[in-house]
Amino acid sequence: MEILFLGTGAGVPAKARNVTSIALKLLEERNAVWLFDCGEATQHQILRTTLKPRKVEKIFITHLHGDHIFGLPGFLGSRSFQGGESPLVIYGPKGIKDFVEVSLRVSETHVKYPLSVIEIGEGTVFEDGQFTVEARRLNHGIESFGYRIMEKDKPGALDAEKLKKEGIHPGPVYRLLKEGRTVTLDDGRTINGKDYLGPAKKGRVVAILGDTRPSPAAVRLAQNADLLIHEATFNRESEKMAHDYFHSTTFQAAKTAKEAGAKQLLLTHISSRYGKEDWPVLEQEAKTVFPESLLVHDFMEVPVS
Amino acid sequence: MEILFLGTGAGVPAKARNVTSIALKLLEERNAVWLFDCGEATQHQILRTTLKPRKVEKIFITHLHGDHIFGLPGFLGSRSFQGGESPLVIYGPKGIKDFVEVSLRVSETHVKYPLSVIEIGEGTVFEDGQFTVEARRLNHGIESFGYRIMEKDKPGALDAEKLKKEGIHPGPVYRLLKEGRTVTLDDGRTINGKDYLGPAKKGRVVAILGDTRPSPAAVRLAQNADLLIHEATFNRESEKMAHDYFHSTTFQAAKTAKEAGAKQLLLTHISSRYGKEDWPVLEQEAKTVFPESLLVHDFMEVPVS
Ligand SMILES: [Zn+2]
Ligand SMILES: [Zn+2]
Repeated sequence: MEILFLGTGAGVPAKARNVTSIALKLLEERNAVWLFDCGEATQHQILRTTLKPRKVEKIFITHLHGDHIFGLPGFLGSRSFQGGESPLVIYGPKGIKDFVEVSLRVSETHVKYPLSVIEIGEGTVFEDGQFTVEARRLNHGIESFGYRIMEKDKPGALDAEKLKKEGIHPGPVYRLLKEGRTVTLDDGRTINGKDYLGPAKKGRVVAILGDTRPSPAAVRLAQNADLLIHEATFNRESEKMAHDYFHSTTFQAAKTAKEAGAKQLLLTHISSRYGKEDWPVLEQEAKTVFPESLLVHDFMEVPVS
Repeated sequence: MEILFLGTGAGVPAKARNVTSIALKLLEERNAVWLFDCGEATQHQILRTTLKPRKVEKIFITHLHGDHIFGLPGFLGSRSFQGGESPLVIYGPKGIKDFVEVSLRVSETHVKYPLSVIEIGEGTVFEDGQFTVEARRLNHGIESFGYRIMEKDKPGALDAEKLKKEGIHPGPVYRLLKEGRTVTLDDGRTINGKDYLGPAKKGRVVAILGDTRPSPAAVRLAQNADLLIHEATFNRESEKMAHDYFHSTTFQAAKTAKEAGAKQLLLTHISSRYGKEDWPVLEQEAKTVFPESLLVHDFMEVPVS
């Protein structure tokens, strides 16, 4: 599980940072990639990575501002052109369906894979045996969601050595023991699978938030998260401007991370008013309140551990 | 008057060529730029040139395939963000209005300049004292237009030296003579402006065509043009494939240029199946029938003389 930043800028593309898109790489976990937002030229950014568009299984849109969605129609078309045939699901606020449908209709883009678009509200937007994704409304003028991606706990490994030593040999019974059940063997012994399981592996939690002012929903989504990805459009002293434009400062993002008890904070959505020389300063502003802060740039990859 | 190629690829973006957009620079003529098509990341390409989005006065869309329009919403938003306040007019096939309106509405993009979108048919789509733009339907499966941009002839310069030698001094009378009128002077002399004008300067003609199979409309649009910009998606031997996908080969584009009596042919919309090593071969295929052929690449600038 890794995070690959495809675009880390705000509002308009700049040479140094493209507009927003974040890839959650789940290659080991499910041989898939989930995108969060898809600003213009996201497919161009992908061309410069090893990501395969056909492996993108889900796209979660935080909000409908152009810098977060204008790359969607092109990406959808190219995924088909490049041979993508597996289903793709898009989750996003009300209006996303209209945008996707009109874009594909007028351009006569006929994708060759099953495409569904789900307009979401708050709560659980996706769940399977591996992951739960929960959405909450943030505070951004336009409806903007944050996503909490929760990996389910994985049971510990079965201690086959110990079982063999006790004369219990591999067979159908192992599957039952692995699930932690109690089993009566042919020889009359009753044993409990839990006694033969290593420690369960705790699922990881990542919070990826859309544009927002500081908000209780942000803290809730990031509660004890292994990783919080938060916008930091402005520097610490521009709090008034951040408020007026419904954004956050570096310092505010760090306060949210601290309050939530997150383990690591990645700062993105950096305004192009800040040049290379400002970036370490911005990062430092966050670190004063939350030491595990990192200001990211396009194509940076961060493992989630 | 110069042509600046912002994107010269076909279908999907590739590292070597972005999807289609062509800038007609009219900086000397009217301090303006006209765009023809606006594929995804056209605004990103513009960032790498000296073009100013606020100087873009008109955008002519040839057809609604994604590789020709998906950069439009982002460009429109950024033009406003970067301070553009002068009016912008978009011309294009039926459907362009829907695409622009829905994209701007769902993203809550409120541009700060007067924006109009005109859905065109065949005939004159624009005319003022300087230029006439005519559109014709090509042959591309989806409705696809070609544009013929005709600069109006400019009257010759007034020979002030000759006038002064004959005792006719600068004043309001010069304006009348410049327009080629006959004037009676205070001293009773009657003189004809035409006798004091240099040769008229012939207006230039540029034809910029959308995707198309060979078609009589293409020949008509390019009739005696100083410059024809024509797609060449495929190489000479792929004529069957070009036909099936409603495109042209290098050779077919060159035949159109020859038949139209155009002075120069620029080949664009090159499929990404052809690599750098193929480009000279493609150009040569066109040259065998039309020697003044040039295969263009992204950021190439060609003067119209
Ligand atoms: Zn944004
Ligand atoms: Zn095309």
